[in-house]
Amino acid sequence: MIELYWGSGSPWAWRVMLALAVKGVEYESRLLSFSEGDHKADGFLALNPRGQVPCLRDGDVCVYESLAIVAYLDRRFPEPPLLGRTPAESGRVFQTILEFEHHGVPVINDRVTRRIFRGQAVDYAEEIREAAPAARAELARLDARLDGREWLVGDAVSAADLGVYPHLQLLLRALGKPDARDLDLGLTPFDTVFPALAAWCRRVEALPGYDATYPPHWREAP
Amino acid sequence: MIELYWGSGSPWAWRVMLALAVKGVEYESRLLSFSEGDHKADGFLALNPRGQVPCLRDGDVCVYESLAIVAYLDRRFPEPPLLGRTPAESGRVFQTILEFEHHGVPVINDRVTRRIFRGQAVDYAEEIREAAPAARAELARLDARLDGREWLVGDAVSAADLGVYPHLQLLLRALGKPDARDLDLGLTPFDTVFPALAAWCRRVEALPGYDATYPPHWREAP
Repeated sequence: MIELYWGSGSPWAWRVMLALAVKGVEYESRLLSFSEGDHKADGFLALNPRGQVPCLRDGDVCVYESLAIVAYLDRRFPEPPLLGRTPAESGRVFQTILEFEHHGVPVINDRVTRRIFRGQAVDYAEEIREAAPAARAELARLDARLDGREWLVGDAVSAADLGVYPHLQLLLRALGKPDARDLDLGLTPFDTVFPALAAWCRRVEALPGYDATYPPHWREAP
Repeated sequence: MIELYWGSGSPWAWRVMLALAVKGVEYESRLLSFSEGDHKADGFLALNPRGQVPCLRDGDVCVYESLAIVAYLDRRFPEPPLLGRTPAESGRVFQTILEFEHHGVPVINDRVTRRIFRGQAVDYAEEIREAAPAARAELARLDARLDGREWLVGDAVSAADLGVYPHLQLLLRALGKPDARDLDLGLTPFDTVFPALAAWCRRVEALPGYDATYPPHWREAP
């Protein structure tokens, strides 16, 4: 059976878990504890020398890099397709994910979400506020694109949706932290500022299998 | 006919040109001049609002992000496949490219090649030397992987080869600049330090159509 090595709250692992859920693929869950250093243990380094999650093992095949895992899964379990049904859709799915990785993640994840999660909301308030307009612009692009559409590409859920969604949930969780509430970044209330994006988040959350992918430590400390 | 917007010496554009060459796809070349600001002109921004090359247009379809273009081309012109013939190969091709983008490019391209091309080999000599061991380690991984193998994944050229190659050629060109020769980064002579990688470079250079992809301004000022 397929084994998935992951970490609770890793947006990169979460996108793969969502892909497995949408495809209805059963797997053995191998939850690594970052605080225990599981990802730097010899056993795991033998699978992924970079020591990063997610990492998927399927018999003799071992794949890491989240998008590579999704590409593997989409060939191995073709239905429903997550990387497009046509050449144009395929190009668009990859473009959406990669554009988000190259332009969205560096500002949303690296300059806002991660700072807050690291407890730097107060000490780095100025840097976070400086990043906010760019983060807002990236979110506004997605919001505009989803205006009148259900999914980011085509008329069904794709890897574009599953790739972007975890980063937005991480951002929302960060923005809800007590010491982040005073930052006033113009990103909340999310439902009002980005209505199409918020509706799309609820659509992702209604996917079959979604609940099982929710980061377990978030449930313990909501 | 397909149109490709590209820039001379862009490793991202070069990989797409190599993919088109290997697949034997004819296209209209749209060479943009960065120094003239062609990539920030309204006409091009209508195709790619990020103002970046490569960007491919095929009738109504317009795709940017180099790997998304390769994914599009691989569906549109399936032979020879560049993204793997099997699920395992596909996962491995994507993993190789993405691992190189996430670990190789930030050190090889961003901390060595680009510094030298910007004329900073002397002023930033210390920073470049600091980056050298990590760059060497990434190249050594590729070299080890190619030991006894012809291509990075499977037994034929793939997008992994075409995605990595341009960055190595850019590095070699940078290292050959007069003010970079004294840096002594332990990366040259390339054929001696990384013999398998050097042999693989010559294999890529023997691909049909390779010559037409060679950056034109490199020929003018070798």
